[in-house]
Amino acid sequence: ELEEEVKDAQNPPIRVGGAVRFQYVYADYDADNRDRAGDLDFDLVRIDFNGEINDVILAAQYRWFQYMEAVQKAYVGYNFTDHWQGQVGIINVPYGNIPYNSHNYFFSSNFYVGLEDNPESGINFQYRSKDWDWDIGFMKGDEQGGVDGFVDSRADRYAYDAVGIRLDGEGIYDAPSLQVAKSNYWAVRGARKFHFADGDKLELGLSTQIGDLHDGNDSVGDREVYGAHARFNSGPWELMGMVSRYDFDTDVANQGIVTGAYAYFDTMPSAATLYTANVAYDLPVNIGPVSALRFYDNFSLMSAKNGLEDDTFMNVLGMAVSAGGLYTYFDIVTAENHPFVGGTMGADGGQTNTRFNINFGYYF
Amino acid sequence: ELEEEVKDAQNPPIRVGGAVRFQYVYADYDADNRDRAGDLDFDLVRIDFNGEINDVILAAQYRWFQYMEAVQKAYVGYNFTDHWQGQVGIINVPYGNIPYNSHNYFFSSNFYVGLEDNPESGINFQYRSKDWDWDIGFMKGDEQGGVDGFVDSRADRYAYDAVGIRLDGEGIYDAPSLQVAKSNYWAVRGARKFHFADGDKLELGLSTQIGDLHDGNDSVGDREVYGAHARFNSGPWELMGMVSRYDFDTDVANQGIVTGAYAYFDTMPSAATLYTANVAYDLPVNIGPVSALRFYDNFSLMSAKNGLEDDTFMNVLGMAVSAGGLYTYFDIVTAENHPFVGGTMGADGGQTNTRFNINFGYYF
Amino acid sequence: ELEEEVKDAQNPPIRVGGAVRFQYVYADYDADNRDRAGDLDFDLVRIDFNGEINDVILAAQYRWFQYMEAVQKAYVGYNFTDHWQGQVGIINVPYGNIPYNSHNYFFSSNFYVGLEDNPESGINFQYRSKDWDWDIGFMKGDEQGGVDGFVDSRADRYAYDAVGIRLDGEGIYDAPSLQVAKSNYWAVRGARKFHFADGDKLELGLSTQIGDLHDGNDSVGDREVYGAHARFNSGPWELMGMVSRYDFDTDVANQGIVTGAYAYFDTMPSAATLYTANVAYDLPVNIGPVSALRFYDNFSLMSAKNGLEDDTFMNVLGMAVSAGGLYTYFDIVTAENHPFVGGTMGADGGQTNTRFNINFGYYF
Repeated sequence: ELEEEVKDAQNPPIRVGGAVRFQYVYADYDADNRDRAGDLDFDLVRIDFNGEINDVILAAQYRWFQYMEAVQKAYVGYNFTDHWQGQVGIINVPYGNIPYNSHNYFFSSNFYVGLEDNPESGINFQYRSKDWDWDIGFMKGDEQGGVDGFVDSRADRYAYDAVGIRLDGEGIYDAPSLQVAKSNYWAVRGARKFHFADGDKLELGLSTQIGDLHDGNDSVGDREVYGAHARFNSGPWELMGMVSRYDFDTDVANQGIVTGAYAYFDTMPSAATLYTANVAYDLPVNIGPVSALRFYDNFSLMSAKNGLEDDTFMNVLGMAVSAGGLYTYFDIVTAENHPFVGGTMGADGGQTNTRFNINFGYYF
Repeated sequence: ELEEEVKDAQNPPIRVGGAVRFQYVYADYDADNRDRAGDLDFDLVRIDFNGEINDVILAAQYRWFQYMEAVQKAYVGYNFTDHWQGQVGIINVPYGNIPYNSHNYFFSSNFYVGLEDNPESGINFQYRSKDWDWDIGFMKGDEQGGVDGFVDSRADRYAYDAVGIRLDGEGIYDAPSLQVAKSNYWAVRGARKFHFADGDKLELGLSTQIGDLHDGNDSVGDREVYGAHARFNSGPWELMGMVSRYDFDTDVANQGIVTGAYAYFDTMPSAATLYTANVAYDLPVNIGPVSALRFYDNFSLMSAKNGLEDDTFMNVLGMAVSAGGLYTYFDIVTAENHPFVGGTMGADGGQTNTRFNINFGYYF
Repeated sequence: ELEEEVKDAQNPPIRVGGAVRFQYVYADYDADNRDRAGDLDFDLVRIDFNGEINDVILAAQYRWFQYMEAVQKAYVGYNFTDHWQGQVGIINVPYGNIPYNSHNYFFSSNFYVGLEDNPESGINFQYRSKDWDWDIGFMKGDEQGGVDGFVDSRADRYAYDAVGIRLDGEGIYDAPSLQVAKSNYWAVRGARKFHFADGDKLELGLSTQIGDLHDGNDSVGDREVYGAHARFNSGPWELMGMVSRYDFDTDVANQGIVTGAYAYFDTMPSAATLYTANVAYDLPVNIGPVSALRFYDNFSLMSAKNGLEDDTFMNVLGMAVSAGGLYTYFDIVTAENHPFVGGTMGADGGQTNTRFNINFGYYF
């Protein structure tokens, strides 16, 4: 009888989880924020569905902000063998260091050109073994259904995507008059994982994305991305490095590519090279509810921009504090020509800005 | 002690469930969709609350799309006897074959005139026994609070409802200048269920809806609906048939009735007759995670339209695949003058369109 | 083995709960509502996250309406000692009778000036013992990030806040041309709790809020609030009383303060005194699923308005019915110059209106 009750009490196979986040911001480039000694703002409520029923996997995440709503993933999966998993739906496009090419709340600059933690609509076959990672993906479009997706705003998305071609005479933050979307592209990632006798681990990998740009009537160009990444773990230390080159080849003259995310349109150069270098150190502690600290420095540089002179960089020096379900990032962000730090990647002439940010996130 | 723990571990009496859906669409009537070889689009995230506490029932469902949000149901219920249940709130108006007059993802044409799976605000008393179904409902209005409901848009709803009277000179998809809503109407449904010795089942029923149209100041007409339905089950086979006649009698001259749903306004004739014929065949299988297949053909015809010459029809030939929590519809939709298939019920002169649609839905 | 299963079956430490509500309204001041014999409208779907992981507490609540979405709370907490809890995030500003200064669905008039159940962004340290309550809070701003918060609309919030200064020539319900927000204010509340030999309880307390008004560039004034409250419990009886005085001292001439909530802008006087008197009687019953009834009368008066002659009052005579998860308020609201009852606090000349309201709420 008790066994019956235990069975009744079993949690459902799909777990409903989520996150709640808010943050304190002090931005030296924002006079009224300084005048108030910073702001404490609501960030998001998140709902996650994860689990499997009869070997069919579900992974989905919905995010509510006070200015938009977005899906971060929504896919079904199936393990064909112990090594091969297939995924279809709104999946994370496989690229470079995964899940993140960073340790801090702001990610690396890769995120702001769509090359970190970027959901797209497509299919992916992933191979995982002790020594090798392979991802062979084909993306039909972005997470908002591409150029004619039926959505409130094409800027209401979690991760930066190309949503237009920036034409001569338009402003950096204008909504695009020539709308485009990535369409029908391949995304392939391979990585070799080395395991050393002393427990150290090294991963070296290559990634590429090649495919089409579509304006709602026809192809209007294509896009190529190449990346090489490395990750080294030794005890409490983690080192990451990555080099990426992306190139949009548009049929019409462009002043950059229009990006959309977080309810804003912005501009990025139509081609650029990005460098990332990250270091982190983990320290288990026992201070009240605090069980772990992580110290890190994450550096990104964007250079060789098509049509622009000035580089973009971002350095995030920070600490993450783990306490129960609460994971808090303390970040000192120093950046030039960088979104979310008072600048844009799509114009010359920015100045170096500093932002102190504490993001409180409760995850469950 | 273990018993205590079992009790603590009991899941809460209200179950939080949901669904995640996305779909592949190839539409022969959409040149740019064809040019991209179809699109893979996010559909929805759904959250369901179902259960009961001390015999008081809750059933609610919220749906998030990238272009709108809507409630599909939100009611409380109570079983007065073993046979009688009362429901109040946003309930499903009882009508015809329930829960669905169809087997495919697109439902039957009835859905597009508000006569299938349509939530309204009201109260319903339902009687269920082995032999009889009775539903005696009274609807105060629609799920958005009627003509003066305080909502973002009257077109942001899950199921098609009358939201206006189409006046001379307005376009088919225009927002209504003369807004109306169904108000204070009766919905009664009765069905006789026959159980044959060989296990076959037959259900024959009649439904009606009679009530008011309100423009925010006064009654501006009334509305009558009559329907007869049949359902026959024999082993793996299911057959359904239905005939419906609806008639809006408006005090002002109309060019049809404005409908609202899925963030779009559209037009339907002020009176019409709808015929539905469905057949489905269930096949249990054991192919990897796939446990069942269903093959079906669903046909709808809308004729005798007030003020229009051309009929509407839709045929959906399809297969549904059950695999764990995943239920996938593969539908070949052929239709003329039909919403969601490149046409409208409210104008003459459409052409026959074909849409191939795969809707992936994970339900839990 | 069974023990293992029990452990597996344990519910997650953060509980996902929620609420679903809808209501019937009959308003004597709304001719078309009367003409339809009232309306039955959807109210909200609510999702709650509550619990703790390793002593770190999460409390969050998200609300979806058909016209807006809002966060009601989103904070993390930690019990430093048995008596002291710290909270940071979107917290409920401590003030007066808590959690509510009322027994009915409409709260007291305090709610409509931001002095009842009002979430703000800040930090609070609360002391709770048998005899004393202390709350020492510092609010950085409101729940929408203050005057430059990145939000869809500053009126899309759960509780009334100051969002602008009403300038000469503007209408009572206009969006503010001079936007402001509460900023950097202290909120302190103390209460003494007396426990009598016969089980009766008396609480007497004082509250204050003092701080800044910010227009996005500079401070444009300050704000002071003083309150005294009392609560007496004797068996089934509860009595509450409260007096509040608030005063906005703005650097520019004002015609009142613009408030925002429930997708509407409204006006309140820049200073006023509010009186609340409540009585409630609890009656346990056993009628079908109904386990408890509560009868109440709640009276609010707003007087000594700056720049206005006419007082605001609201009386709510009502009954609440508890049945399983369903909690239903039957309220007869009689009010003059009151929001949600056909009036505004920010103008003279209103008339006495009556609204009969049944709010059905299923909470879990």
